[in-house]
Amino acid sequence: MPRALTSLNAKEVKFLRSALTEENAFMTTRDCLQWLEHRRKQTHVQIEQIPFAKLRKWYFDKDTGNLRHESGRFFSIEGAHVKTNYGFVSEWSQPIINQPEIGILGIITREINGILYFLMQAKIEPGNINYVQLSPTLQATKSNYTKIHKGASPEYLEYFTDSSKSRVLSDQLQSEQGARFLKKRNRNIIVEIDDNILLKDNFCWLTLGQIIRLMEYDNVVNMDTRTVISGIQFGSLCPEQIELYIKSDFHRKEHTMFQPDILTSMFDNTSARNTIDDIISWITGLKTRYELNVENVPLNSVREWQKDDYAIHHKTKNFFSVIAVLVEIENREVASWTQPLIRAAQEGIISFLMKKFSGVSHFLVQAKLEAGNFDILEMAPTVQCITGNYRNAPSDKRPPFLDYVLNAREDQIKYSTYQSEEGGRFYREQNRNLIIEVDDSFPAAVPDNYIWMTLNQLKQFIKYNNYLNIQARTLLSAIGLK
Amino acid sequence: MPRALTSLNAKEVKFLRSALTEENAFMTTRDCLQWLEHRRKQTHVQIEQIPFAKLRKWYFDKDTGNLRHESGRFFSIEGAHVKTNYGFVSEWSQPIINQPEIGILGIITREINGILYFLMQAKIEPGNINYVQLSPTLQATKSNYTKIHKGASPEYLEYFTDSSKSRVLSDQLQSEQGARFLKKRNRNIIVEIDDNILLKDNFCWLTLGQIIRLMEYDNVVNMDTRTVISGIQFGSLCPEQIELYIKSDFHRKEHTMFQPDILTSMFDNTSARNTIDDIISWITGLKTRYELNVENVPLNSVREWQKDDYAIHHKTKNFFSVIAVLVEIENREVASWTQPLIRAAQEGIISFLMKKFSGVSHFLVQAKLEAGNFDILEMAPTVQCITGNYRNAPSDKRPPFLDYVLNAREDQIKYSTYQSEEGGRFYREQNRNLIIEVDDSFPAAVPDNYIWMTLNQLKQFIKYNNYLNIQARTLLSAIGLK
Repeated sequence: MPRALTSLNAKEVKFLRSALTEENAFMTTRDCLQWLEHRRKQTHVQIEQIPFAKLRKWYFDKDTGNLRHESGRFFSIEGAHVKTNYGFVSEWSQPIINQPEIGILGIITREINGILYFLMQAKIEPGNINYVQLSPTLQATKSNYTKIHKGASPEYLEYFTDSSKSRVLSDQLQSEQGARFLKKRNRNIIVEIDDNILLKDNFCWLTLGQIIRLMEYDNVVNMDTRTVISGIQFGSLCPEQIELYIKSDFHRKEHTMFQPDILTSMFDNTSARNTIDDIISWITGLKTRYELNVENVPLNSVREWQKDDYAIHHKTKNFFSVIAVLVEIENREVASWTQPLIRAAQEGIISFLMKKFSGVSHFLVQAKLEAGNFDILEMAPTVQCITGNYRNAPSDKRPPFLDYVLNAREDQIKYSTYQSEEGGRFYREQNRNLIIEVDDSFPAAVPDNYIWMTLNQLKQFIKYNNYLNIQARTLLSAIGLK
Repeated sequence: MPRALTSLNAKEVKFLRSALTEENAFMTTRDCLQWLEHRRKQTHVQIEQIPFAKLRKWYFDKDTGNLRHESGRFFSIEGAHVKTNYGFVSEWSQPIINQPEIGILGIITREINGILYFLMQAKIEPGNINYVQLSPTLQATKSNYTKIHKGASPEYLEYFTDSSKSRVLSDQLQSEQGARFLKKRNRNIIVEIDDNILLKDNFCWLTLGQIIRLMEYDNVVNMDTRTVISGIQFGSLCPEQIELYIKSDFHRKEHTMFQPDILTSMFDNTSARNTIDDIISWITGLKTRYELNVENVPLNSVREWQKDDYAIHHKTKNFFSVIAVLVEIENREVASWTQPLIRAAQEGIISFLMKKFSGVSHFLVQAKLEAGNFDILEMAPTVQCITGNYRNAPSDKRPPFLDYVLNAREDQIKYSTYQSEEGGRFYREQNRNLIIEVDDSFPAAVPDNYIWMTLNQLKQFIKYNNYLNIQARTLLSAIGLK
């Protein structure tokens, strides 16, 4: 262990070492892609859009029009009436997913030959564009993990509920999409075990470096994995320690893509353009200025939205619609069920602009208000929008920086993939994920709702919960240390 | 400036220097007490409890029974229906104060001869036990500071609303009493100015050390001052730097009460019993386990509470009541108005137990659920309760550690005063504030809902907002560095 790393605690060093490792004696990254492809071929999934009338066990409540499950479990589609002084529209109603319980998104890790491995799952979700994606060890609702409703427990659940079986490495409450969910949060947790455990079907061990590498491919790593990974803390090092670190043998030969500007942005908490206190003051000022008043209302009172036999949609057909699907999955057994899903009207863009200040990469963060936000505003990517809504809009009505993103030169695009939203709720929804490095000429001064932050700072805010929205978190999860 | 302090930024050093200074060329601490006493004598305040029928401009809404002001301003008393799996009682209704806007509690500071001075106000509040207490420069509701309703601006408002007139030193959103308010939060802000400003009537300049010293007296420093002061960050130093610091001439002769265990607890972020990640995991686990479902209901639907001509109270007369008062204040002018106030049924106790682990003072923090909490649970003092409710209860129904607090030996009591709750809402409400150092024999293992934290860690959580409740914050504000 080089001296620089002694300022980090054992946990951070474990994460770091794994993030820098793509070698895997059990499964190479290429093998993992093939394994996922194989699971897709083995599994026959059929998704058919059906009229609401054909939903089984789901019904529209007579009084409210809310779409609910007979058991009261899962989620319901209700209405939200929103008033705010943020943005162009000061009042609207919309359907919103209400799922008030806190679910668990959990990953088991284990150190093997000095490297931390993550237990990942090839999971089928009906809404996934390619049916099977790489997901955390566990995705469980509260009904699942408290076993109120009998039936089989999710695999490996006991490692998250019985503290004698594992040690916690990371454990945070994080939000989901505020435009779709009413104050939904999940527990994002990573635990470590000492002893080997049985590798069940559909599971594999990967290093953190491999998972990050897999995010360079479209729609391979699911949203739940991305949010859990985003919470990993690598700690802070001072500039001299980073220097030492770069020279150390811990930074092994295969890591030739190593970028000092990203490294400094991740580790150094002294060379940022704004201090943490500045950023807290910025968001405090905005939360004081902007009001968000959300009233939970009956779905049948939501104005400007129309319901026909097959969908609930906005009268302009913008935004999203609620549809019903029949799912048939034939694996070893045949499973079949019906459920509502949310279908986005258009593809979206999620993008961070990145700029070096004194050699340190900074990200341009937006304070964004969405109807279901837990606390008015969350820190969001520079641009987060449904592009279709804006392509033909006059430039003063287009979100700030959208043109810059759409017109970025090839050499400015540091990251570009399509990534999926959660396939249990969203129907084949993917967003273009982009990280774009702007030129030196890009102005350092930005509008009130924006601020420049380093990776180290973004990680701090992730750690303290409820600051970064899921789009910002999942985009950051793709950033490796090399 | 000794070398140790170079790790802190200029702002933290300013706060530190002021916290260690009780000398004041303008007003000694004794003078300040006399000045407050003089203001009290100059001011004739009469508070008379009146029947609700005599309230002017306040009325009970015909449909809901909610108690509201004609203008829609100020606050209203509404009902809350609470369901939770925390504690002994799983469902109840209660009156609650609804005041959804974010107010400003602000202090102006200015460096004079190298020491940061705080601009404090001798402020009259009708509910204050002694009418006049030391308050922040500014206490303003959103209606005040946005000037929606014309009329005189609060004094010095422009230094908080016009960013060209000051620099922000501290700026956080913090909660008020969750048992009384529905998700109420204020912006707690400290700004610094460069040029001298006119010292208006009822204002004075004090060092931070003086303000902390004044908290050793009963009911002198008001709740709003205490919460703003609690947010001040002194930064982190490593043990070697603390050693240097102790030896430095910055630690001047007059500070003979200097306690290394408190200093280490405040500055050292490496010698804590639990890491910040451990603590985040602890609160995440508890927020996942405990549910808080609060429904805003009409006041006239609140069960078990009774309304007569003079008060709304619980049928047992426990907890608190809502009363109406006529206020007459004769200063230079005569002001008279009527308003509702909340009157506590009994005096309460707010107490931290403190224990040294390896020479570093740790505080025993409780995760406490209250009806109006913004996010289910907040970090609270070890004991926070209305003592009258428990004096005769069997020991298994009494709050944990209450007996320890009530039976503490004189030499264990490190801090003991009566401090007031906000006199604009609460009628002569004071709580006993205690910090008690436990013996070595006190068990380190504590129940699930409790955890040991250092001052450095508590300050971190204060900084990131919405973690510590107001009782914990104000109790910590009294801890000086000497």
